[in-house]
Amino acid sequence: MGETLADVGEFGVIDRIKAVIGEPIGIDVGPGDDAAVFDHPGSTVASVDTVIEGRHFKPEWCDPQDIGRRATAAAMADIAAMGGRPTGVLVSFGLPAETAVTWVEEVIEGAKAEADAAAAVVLGGDLARSETVTVSVTAIGSVPQGKAVTRRGAQPGDVVALAGRQGWAAAGLTVLSRGFRSPRSLVSAYQRPAPPYESGPDAAAAGATAMIDVSDGLLADIRHIAVASDVLIELDAPAIPVADQLVETSSAFNVDPLTWVLAGGDDHSLIAAFPAAARLPDMFTVIGRVEEAPEAGPGVNVDGRLWSGKGGGHDHFRG
Amino acid sequence: MGETLADVGEFGVIDRIKAVIGEPIGIDVGPGDDAAVFDHPGSTVASVDTVIEGRHFKPEWCDPQDIGRRATAAAMADIAAMGGRPTGVLVSFGLPAETAVTWVEEVIEGAKAEADAAAAVVLGGDLARSETVTVSVTAIGSVPQGKAVTRRGAQPGDVVALAGRQGWAAAGLTVLSRGFRSPRSLVSAYQRPAPPYESGPDAAAAGATAMIDVSDGLLADIRHIAVASDVLIELDAPAIPVADQLVETSSAFNVDPLTWVLAGGDDHSLIAAFPAAARLPDMFTVIGRVEEAPEAGPGVNVDGRLWSGKGGGHDHFRG
Repeated sequence: MGETLADVGEFGVIDRIKAVIGEPIGIDVGPGDDAAVFDHPGSTVASVDTVIEGRHFKPEWCDPQDIGRRATAAAMADIAAMGGRPTGVLVSFGLPAETAVTWVEEVIEGAKAEADAAAAVVLGGDLARSETVTVSVTAIGSVPQGKAVTRRGAQPGDVVALAGRQGWAAAGLTVLSRGFRSPRSLVSAYQRPAPPYESGPDAAAAGATAMIDVSDGLLADIRHIAVASDVLIELDAPAIPVADQLVETSSAFNVDPLTWVLAGGDDHSLIAAFPAAARLPDMFTVIGRVEEAPEAGPGVNVDGRLWSGKGGGHDHFRG
Repeated sequence: MGETLADVGEFGVIDRIKAVIGEPIGIDVGPGDDAAVFDHPGSTVASVDTVIEGRHFKPEWCDPQDIGRRATAAAMADIAAMGGRPTGVLVSFGLPAETAVTWVEEVIEGAKAEADAAAAVVLGGDLARSETVTVSVTAIGSVPQGKAVTRRGAQPGDVVALAGRQGWAAAGLTVLSRGFRSPRSLVSAYQRPAPPYESGPDAAAAGATAMIDVSDGLLADIRHIAVASDVLIELDAPAIPVADQLVETSSAFNVDPLTWVLAGGDDHSLIAAFPAAARLPDMFTVIGRVEEAPEAGPGVNVDGRLWSGKGGGHDHFRG
């Protein structure tokens, strides 16, 4: 056991964090001052995502780098889901005094690596003592003025399309929770999501009318678009891509792979609605269409049947 | 006991929070989408501050509105300390499932009231389940391009000046921790700090060379300027304002009121260095001057004697 936060103290840890981050390129004022200062074009986009040990991650399934990557990916995917590009992230820790300093350094390394994958940087953060291991990441980015894509613009006649891996993280979680460590591709999809960051701005440029990233579950998150846009979304199950790895692994684990795809969160794939005439960006696959909401109100159908909400999405306070 | 988070669920709470926030004025996309979207002039400034129950606040000393105000004030004061103006805040909660929904609503009300005091808004946030009550506020603001004031520009010959109440929160904490509830002015200074937000941009416009807000303790935070600027800061104790309320209360509590002023944090007063020829904004009082750092390195003197670090500042991991 190496040095702990109690050993080196708050300002000692901050120095170590600053050493890991270095001087972020293109940033006027980086970590270590009262606030970070930077320029980016257009409007500012901001979102925060918090992960808690035991609830969002288990230390035996995610190393500290993974924790940093996952939390950072979750926050930055929200920027992409508005059609924006992340500029940087602030990482805020709540940690017990006995936490190893190297643990903090590795989380920051993970955050930095994930930020780098989206051409963003770690801007700074803060550190507080807590009995519960907590990592909260705020992502800040930019979108061309007036071009942000919300959840509420989907129109009857639009197509609904998916970009990025979907169901992989859920499959990886099943593998891990049954005590296995492979297939590696699925386990690592859970540990290190790969949101299709660039597909967000691409979708906005192609005229997307509504967009969301899948963090809670494909159907649960599509439902947010349906409700916000007051429409019915009809998904065509056979059109939803199910990767070979999912099919192969599902038979070994006696799971319907479509369950992973429809109910799985944590991949931060992007779902967008586009006018039927739009030319979709390469990464997107059409998986359904938007219709008028029926009398009963907005919702999501899968192959013509109303999805009841079962098997998709997760309510953290009722879980 | 009213409804809890477990009763209404994550999305039920989010709806209640959205109802409290309303539609923030001047914001393109407010709470309830993947991210907030807004425009502000100049460069973007961002900082995060986290408060933890039992460590940064005790429920018996701060009502939920106070908790929201204090966390929001701490984050927004960091924007002012760069010479910036806050545009909005994101509020992130870590909460047990048995938390009352009204508690969350009241924290948000406090955050909204404090944001309003700085002409800012609540942009959104998130909610995670945690055994430890945690409120993390990210403040985002703007500063004219190239005009941010860091900690590192203080020059020998500059004067050092203070704006805002200082020592009041520490005095209020002493009062509360000895079981009293008055004087109300001091208790409420602890519960609801009043950072001099406008003095930040005023200082920047007046040519401030370095600035910081006092969150950990006057001497501890001035020391950050001294170290970052590689200078010696000479404080003139008789020049430091000690409010009548502090003097009166100190005798009843048998405390040196200067201890509250020099060692007290949480008021989020602003300390800035200015060129000697600068015309100081109204709120600032000169309390010292900047000199060349001696051989031994940068530091802070009080009345010509090196401050040892005792009695000022707080290290959360060694406290």
